[in-house]
Amino acid sequence: MELSVSQIALIAGGTVEGNGDARISTFAKIEEGQPGAISFLANPKYTHHIYTTRSTAVLVSRDFVAEQPVSTTLIRVDDPYATVAHLLSEVQKIMCPPRHGIEQPCFIATDAEVAPDAYIGAFAYIGKGAKIGAGAQIYPQTYVGDNVSIGDNTTLYPGVKVYHGCRIGCRCIIHSGAVIGADGFGFAPTEHGYDKIPQTGIVELDNDVEIGANTTIDRAMMGATKIGRGVKLDNLIQIAHNCSVGRDTVMAAQAGIAGSTKVGERCMIGGQVGVAGHISVGDGAQIAAQSGIQKEVAPGARLFGSPAIDLTEYGRQAVNVRRLSGLYKKVDELAKLINTDKE
Amino acid sequence: MELSVSQIALIAGGTVEGNGDARISTFAKIEEGQPGAISFLANPKYTHHIYTTRSTAVLVSRDFVAEQPVSTTLIRVDDPYATVAHLLSEVQKIMCPPRHGIEQPCFIATDAEVAPDAYIGAFAYIGKGAKIGAGAQIYPQTYVGDNVSIGDNTTLYPGVKVYHGCRIGCRCIIHSGAVIGADGFGFAPTEHGYDKIPQTGIVELDNDVEIGANTTIDRAMMGATKIGRGVKLDNLIQIAHNCSVGRDTVMAAQAGIAGSTKVGERCMIGGQVGVAGHISVGDGAQIAAQSGIQKEVAPGARLFGSPAIDLTEYGRQAVNVRRLSGLYKKVDELAKLINTDKE
Amino acid sequence: MELSVSQIALIAGGTVEGNGDARISTFAKIEEGQPGAISFLANPKYTHHIYTTRSTAVLVSRDFVAEQPVSTTLIRVDDPYATVAHLLSEVQKIMCPPRHGIEQPCFIATDAEVAPDAYIGAFAYIGKGAKIGAGAQIYPQTYVGDNVSIGDNTTLYPGVKVYHGCRIGCRCIIHSGAVIGADGFGFAPTEHGYDKIPQTGIVELDNDVEIGANTTIDRAMMGATKIGRGVKLDNLIQIAHNCSVGRDTVMAAQAGIAGSTKVGERCMIGGQVGVAGHISVGDGAQIAAQSGIQKEVAPGARLFGSPAIDLTEYGRQAVNVRRLSGLYKKVDELAKLINTDKE
Repeated sequence: MELSVSQIALIAGGTVEGNGDARISTFAKIEEGQPGAISFLANPKYTHHIYTTRSTAVLVSRDFVAEQPVSTTLIRVDDPYATVAHLLSEVQKIMCPPRHGIEQPCFIATDAEVAPDAYIGAFAYIGKGAKIGAGAQIYPQTYVGDNVSIGDNTTLYPGVKVYHGCRIGCRCIIHSGAVIGADGFGFAPTEHGYDKIPQTGIVELDNDVEIGANTTIDRAMMGATKIGRGVKLDNLIQIAHNCSVGRDTVMAAQAGIAGSTKVGERCMIGGQVGVAGHISVGDGAQIAAQSGIQKEVAPGARLFGSPAIDLTEYGRQAVNVRRLSGLYKKVDELAKLINTDKE
Repeated sequence: MELSVSQIALIAGGTVEGNGDARISTFAKIEEGQPGAISFLANPKYTHHIYTTRSTAVLVSRDFVAEQPVSTTLIRVDDPYATVAHLLSEVQKIMCPPRHGIEQPCFIATDAEVAPDAYIGAFAYIGKGAKIGAGAQIYPQTYVGDNVSIGDNTTLYPGVKVYHGCRIGCRCIIHSGAVIGADGFGFAPTEHGYDKIPQTGIVELDNDVEIGANTTIDRAMMGATKIGRGVKLDNLIQIAHNCSVGRDTVMAAQAGIAGSTKVGERCMIGGQVGVAGHISVGDGAQIAAQSGIQKEVAPGARLFGSPAIDLTEYGRQAVNVRRLSGLYKKVDELAKLINTDKE
Repeated sequence: MELSVSQIALIAGGTVEGNGDARISTFAKIEEGQPGAISFLANPKYTHHIYTTRSTAVLVSRDFVAEQPVSTTLIRVDDPYATVAHLLSEVQKIMCPPRHGIEQPCFIATDAEVAPDAYIGAFAYIGKGAKIGAGAQIYPQTYVGDNVSIGDNTTLYPGVKVYHGCRIGCRCIIHSGAVIGADGFGFAPTEHGYDKIPQTGIVELDNDVEIGANTTIDRAMMGATKIGRGVKLDNLIQIAHNCSVGRDTVMAAQAGIAGSTKVGERCMIGGQVGVAGHISVGDGAQIAAQSGIQKEVAPGARLFGSPAIDLTEYGRQAVNVRRLSGLYKKVDELAKLINTDKE
């Protein structure tokens, strides 16, 4: 990709101050500017960088007033941050345009239904009775099990595996290595070890869900493990069988939710958090990274620690522990005082 | 799948009370009953749900006595829970019947041995000298390296990778994305960084092992990393090189065992637990979720925390920390008292 | 593989004491010796095992003096440990020789460049404009996205996925299931949920990097997520977008580094460690397993705990907490004493 500053201004609806013919081939943060890059200035905290940035051009707001000489070319726009997001989207469309057609060799069961404008990559496997929606991007080496349905404009990146019967909504993005619908971890202890409890349910992803690389979401024993609309899961997350995750909840990498737990809507779950099974996490709860949740979480709660407690109480306990050496010393001195008094 | 209540009673060896012609198409928990579903009542705690459940039929024990009118159809059986497990198995056989034959295209080395009734899915790769046992289910996109042996009736779900030389027992189930036999993490520090220590051993899975999605088990430097009979590992678990895991031990998701550690038989390892390298965990030990194990664990120990301590001691310490604000206050008051005395 | 003791002595430049015709087919630790195995004695702590080992032969240093009768055959060499590493390398070359040629079926875009002596396994996918270096080992079922470059003599084990545009150095080893270049986890909150922030950057791996099975390294929003020369990452690690990891840093399994964090050179990061986003970890820092890093880490720091503190301070706090029951008791006694005094 290489565009002139003027072309970018045209796309962004902006006006140029400086050299409109300069060539732009990449983005860079304003403080890490480089020739050929375009940066943006949205946060006033970073204003001082505009006088020294090496970037060829910088997106600034229409009302920006320079207080020193500026050597970079400015593109004035209504909202520099939104403009960057827009430009990034345009760049991504160019770097990764929607694909169409069916690459060979691939395997499509005779009774599978594939929308005419969907993309099916080489070495993809589409099972019996599966349905692939309009505009879906089924990258190479993916597995779409029997009777799976994939909604319109959903993307499965290379190597995604979706076990039989699972239902994926529209406009979902599932990254490489994610496994949707493997058996839940259910075993009945017996005299001679463990008997497997068959996992006959499915996984349902609502619309607009994004699932990170190598994340695993297990199928329910009965019924469905449910991921709500707009949920965003990072990489290497574990969602156990029969869980539900409410809409617009986000989880950072390596978090794990044990079986049958219900996570509410708009929750924020930090990285490496563990949540026990068979509990509820209320809407809007925020759980700090590495916390361990053992019991019910109230809506809007902010928790920290393993086992997790309220963030304020956690801070109090941490201070108390940090000051303990002083307390031991003080108690020793008091004991000495008392004993001296006695002598 | 759709069966009549009478057909299910016949499979389950039960007797019908109510409408034997009603159609059943799914399972549901008794408290989440719905028309067309069958539920079961095994735990007396849930008895009250039978009077209100919306399920079409409920499996109850032969001696169940209703204390209120029941509108759902009852199927009386000897053991409702066992009956459900049996029915789930039957359902699973219908949903996921054993596959046979070789799908094309796949890659089978000329000297590999594949049992006649095994299933080899499309895009599977079977290396030189590999052996695939009778009834084995080798799903699409799996990799079976050179000289690997796969036991009878073992299932490799789509995308499983087994590196060269590893041995997988009979009736094992390995879920998508699991990696068996990648190099152990062994490097010798040098003046200029690290030299790789070749990992020339293998991984051995005994019979009846189940391995979760995206779990990784590394090959030994020499000899074998060993997973005992009946071991069940959940998703995203790490088993490092030269470990051994004793029979019928279970581990929850995202646990990690560092190199050369020996985990005993019938242990229960919670989710996100970490166990240090070169130690032993005794038979029957139970490690709570997120614990960190740094040293030897006695047989039957119950540990919690990071670093982990005995569960009772952990509780004591937690209470002591929680009450610290009170202790600080009390000591301040004592100090004031003493100083007042002195004045 | 089967060699005589004399053949091994020849490879190792050693001299035989005992039966040079004995056959060797495997390695074993000296304390786990078995007939047909060769062991080594490097650490004096293990010397007593040489008198009882069941191994057929043992590598010892040239100046080893037996203090009891030895029944195994000795091979005297300059450096037994280095000899073992050398022999293991030779064995690995025999077990896993470099592959050449292109297996069918695979998918290679017409404008991709593949070095003549590289190996491309069956079901591999090489995208448009991709470049595969000399001697590269691209195992089956791997995905090399558009415009990816793979350096000379780099190995991608089965099922590795490298998204478009990423650059992999020379002599790298990437294990099965690793995902390089999936989208960073970036979303902008809106009134109606979250908008995806396009991730238009790439991932760059320098030379001599090893990446463990199922590890994920996300592409940058802009610019590159960078992994330095000689870095070794174990399995199931998460490296978020825009991170950089300095040369010769090693990380154990299941560690996670949040977005835009800079990890220095020669750091040692333990298993299951979590590092927050937008911070720096100084060169040579050592972070104990399961620690949680929330703020800047000084060069050479040794940290432990979640949140992590200096290892010495951690030890002090742990002792203080452990002794708390005693402190509560002591304060109670003091209170009693004072109150008795008052009465």
